[in-house]
Amino acid sequence: MVLTSRHLLQLEGMPQGEIQLILDQASSFKSVLERPIPKVPTLRGKTVVNLFFEASTRTRISFELAEKRISADTVSFSASTSSVLKGETLKDTAKNIEAMKIDYVVIRHAASGAPHFLATCIDASIVNAGDGMHEHPTQALLDMMTLHERFGRLKDLRIAIIGDVAHSRVARSNIHGLQTMGAVVGICGPATLLPRDVDRFGVKVYPRLEEALSEADALIVLRIQMERQKKGLFPSLREYRSLWGITRQRLEACKRDVVIMHPGPINRGVELDGDIADSGHSVILDQVTNGVAVRMAILYLLSGGRTKHDAEHHE
Amino acid sequence: MVLTSRHLLQLEGMPQGEIQLILDQASSFKSVLERPIPKVPTLRGKTVVNLFFEASTRTRISFELAEKRISADTVSFSASTSSVLKGETLKDTAKNIEAMKIDYVVIRHAASGAPHFLATCIDASIVNAGDGMHEHPTQALLDMMTLHERFGRLKDLRIAIIGDVAHSRVARSNIHGLQTMGAVVGICGPATLLPRDVDRFGVKVYPRLEEALSEADALIVLRIQMERQKKGLFPSLREYRSLWGITRQRLEACKRDVVIMHPGPINRGVELDGDIADSGHSVILDQVTNGVAVRMAILYLLSGGRTKHDAEHHE
Amino acid sequence: MVLTSRHLLQLEGMPQGEIQLILDQASSFKSVLERPIPKVPTLRGKTVVNLFFEASTRTRISFELAEKRISADTVSFSASTSSVLKGETLKDTAKNIEAMKIDYVVIRHAASGAPHFLATCIDASIVNAGDGMHEHPTQALLDMMTLHERFGRLKDLRIAIIGDVAHSRVARSNIHGLQTMGAVVGICGPATLLPRDVDRFGVKVYPRLEEALSEADALIVLRIQMERQKKGLFPSLREYRSLWGITRQRLEACKRDVVIMHPGPINRGVELDGDIADSGHSVILDQVTNGVAVRMAILYLLSGGRTKHDAEHHE
Repeated sequence: MVLTSRHLLQLEGMPQGEIQLILDQASSFKSVLERPIPKVPTLRGKTVVNLFFEASTRTRISFELAEKRISADTVSFSASTSSVLKGETLKDTAKNIEAMKIDYVVIRHAASGAPHFLATCIDASIVNAGDGMHEHPTQALLDMMTLHERFGRLKDLRIAIIGDVAHSRVARSNIHGLQTMGAVVGICGPATLLPRDVDRFGVKVYPRLEEALSEADALIVLRIQMERQKKGLFPSLREYRSLWGITRQRLEACKRDVVIMHPGPINRGVELDGDIADSGHSVILDQVTNGVAVRMAILYLLSGGRTKHDAEHHE
Repeated sequence: MVLTSRHLLQLEGMPQGEIQLILDQASSFKSVLERPIPKVPTLRGKTVVNLFFEASTRTRISFELAEKRISADTVSFSASTSSVLKGETLKDTAKNIEAMKIDYVVIRHAASGAPHFLATCIDASIVNAGDGMHEHPTQALLDMMTLHERFGRLKDLRIAIIGDVAHSRVARSNIHGLQTMGAVVGICGPATLLPRDVDRFGVKVYPRLEEALSEADALIVLRIQMERQKKGLFPSLREYRSLWGITRQRLEACKRDVVIMHPGPINRGVELDGDIADSGHSVILDQVTNGVAVRMAILYLLSGGRTKHDAEHHE
Repeated sequence: MVLTSRHLLQLEGMPQGEIQLILDQASSFKSVLERPIPKVPTLRGKTVVNLFFEASTRTRISFELAEKRISADTVSFSASTSSVLKGETLKDTAKNIEAMKIDYVVIRHAASGAPHFLATCIDASIVNAGDGMHEHPTQALLDMMTLHERFGRLKDLRIAIIGDVAHSRVARSNIHGLQTMGAVVGICGPATLLPRDVDRFGVKVYPRLEEALSEADALIVLRIQMERQKKGLFPSLREYRSLWGITRQRLEACKRDVVIMHPGPINRGVELDGDIADSGHSVILDQVTNGVAVRMAILYLLSGGRTKHDAEHHE
């Protein structure tokens, strides 16, 4: 079985079987990462260009590591040193990169739809590393991989996404992906930070945090963006924490073995208390570990599995 | 046959035979780039430092790809993170880099002559990736390669360079290189944007754009720099387009099979209309593709061909 | 023999035998660097993340070259593109990087103690590439390697460190390292730029520059930071040079074969005159060359020598 698209643009609409394929392949690569030499020659000679038009530490490092561990050649650039500054269109940048015979473009961009646009104009495989407030599919895939590791299944899991759902591409990708896999997704947060078109997502909206906490097998706690406060979408960090923060006290309202997730970076003491982030409930660092394996799996599978992959062979 | 210099500083004064050698070697490497694994082990163990003291996307990515595809190790830095900020002289930076046993330095610098200066003080091979308003030899070499692919020759081709010739290192390198190869070069643009010492170049200066268009086998359309406008060198983008822009209407004044080139990034709708950039006349993306092959060829030939190059062998 | 710590955080407290081990290993790697292919496969499959929270050219390039020449995979990031900007704690950044299964973290940070803090919370080997005003151990090791090359010993050498000792991590690391190796270290500089707790270092404080010059086998001339002047710690560059600068005239007060060192970048004509930096007394470029070898040795030895190192074998 292979993926039907040569791009990874979004999880909305991706069939269950394809998501499962990525998760299975990622588990296989995760065992590679535990070897003394955590490297496979799978994409030797293939070239990946990482285009990060927004600042990023962990996502960029995670992609670069995945690329090196699957033996691709990589070139990276960030917006500040780019001819974006010279006013070139995204399309011209893309066409030029393609003319250099690139196999993959990993793109993060502030404009929702930028990766889709690239996919219409170039032949390389496009991987969406986060586009505006649209999707962040690799994040949701690593979240699903982490949940599957912890629970042995995704079907019928109850997942509550807490916080600024309206502006979160992580939330959007998880809603689509988790529902496709049979999980039951609910959202909860300040009314100003919930999506206006919430009906289209088919999720339960919890009016009260306590209800979300008591039902959920796992919480995906979203990062609060400080710039939302300036726009008046919530009054203060202190008030945010008192109303929506996951504290020790609120943890007691959860199921005994509730799992806590966060896409990082955490605002400790705001949306999530530090002692909970560091507790046995937290799988936040497993998410990070799984991110490398998921990204290796995507790069491999987008080549259509045409590239020989011999999991037993390593250099 | 080998290159007589171990540096590529400028095309002015480079013998015809050496330019031809680079173009031939680039064609050979271009076929490598079409393989499933577009890589040769030619420069394995050699180290290239890319010093970009000016912002660049395509040139830097093109060099980095060329370096990886010829199996060199690369280290890159840009001015903003450098001790240039600490007031170190270019010479000290260079001497320090050389002391680290580097084989090649690729340098882009706002000061005309910076690469020449480096060549006087360090032993590594210097490749000029653009110096001030002086030369950009790899750009002209990829332009010549592209013209040769299209026409099967350079001798007696009529090439018109249109626009801000005065400030263009691309124009200078092309004038020198193309004339050496027997092409007939003319220039055309606003009087404020033509070089004052135009006589020294031995090129025809077209007083009227229509004349240039009707005679040329190929147009090299130069990018207009927005900052020239601030200095009063042309009145407005709209007026620039109306007087000098290559539009559909002006294309009709050209030879039927005229070739359109542009070093990028394009200001679409200013010096060149978008539909012409995307038309069958345009070889702009071929230029980009050929850039990687040309840069591989230069790195290889500057090693004096002493490094074994086996075009049949790839890893 | 192996290093007792898996980190290189400081030279203070490092046993003589371990410093000697690093210097010996560095000499061995230096001979590798003189081969046609200056590369060993020692750390193949190991991953190094370079975290530079302060600007750097030479130290970053030196580490990256050392990493490539010992065949490690590398990922680099600088503070300006990092989620440091998003307010993440250093600990969270570190835990996340560790979760990606990194073997080494090379860190430069403005906060004294940042590398030590990382070492308390993650399992990867930490290499201090300069922390605040605390230590810069790889710089001192390359200084000691250079002195040993020139003199054949470190024991009983008289080393004078001249300039802004109070703010210098280079000075601190050299004081600890050189004293451990049996050298006699003195310091000399403006009273405002000498450490207040100078007694704890056990060094001689020369009241007059002439005395330091006449006794020293080697001078380590420190870079003067322009920002110290703004704080009123010295009156002007001109006055600094006239009182403390190493000029041709002052060189005549030195031993006939005095050795001049400087960690770079040099302010030519301020703390050190250009003709002396370029004279036969200067070993400044040897320091740079040795920096790559020292950093290879450290990366190798921190792996506990567990990785097979076959100096005869190269790819």
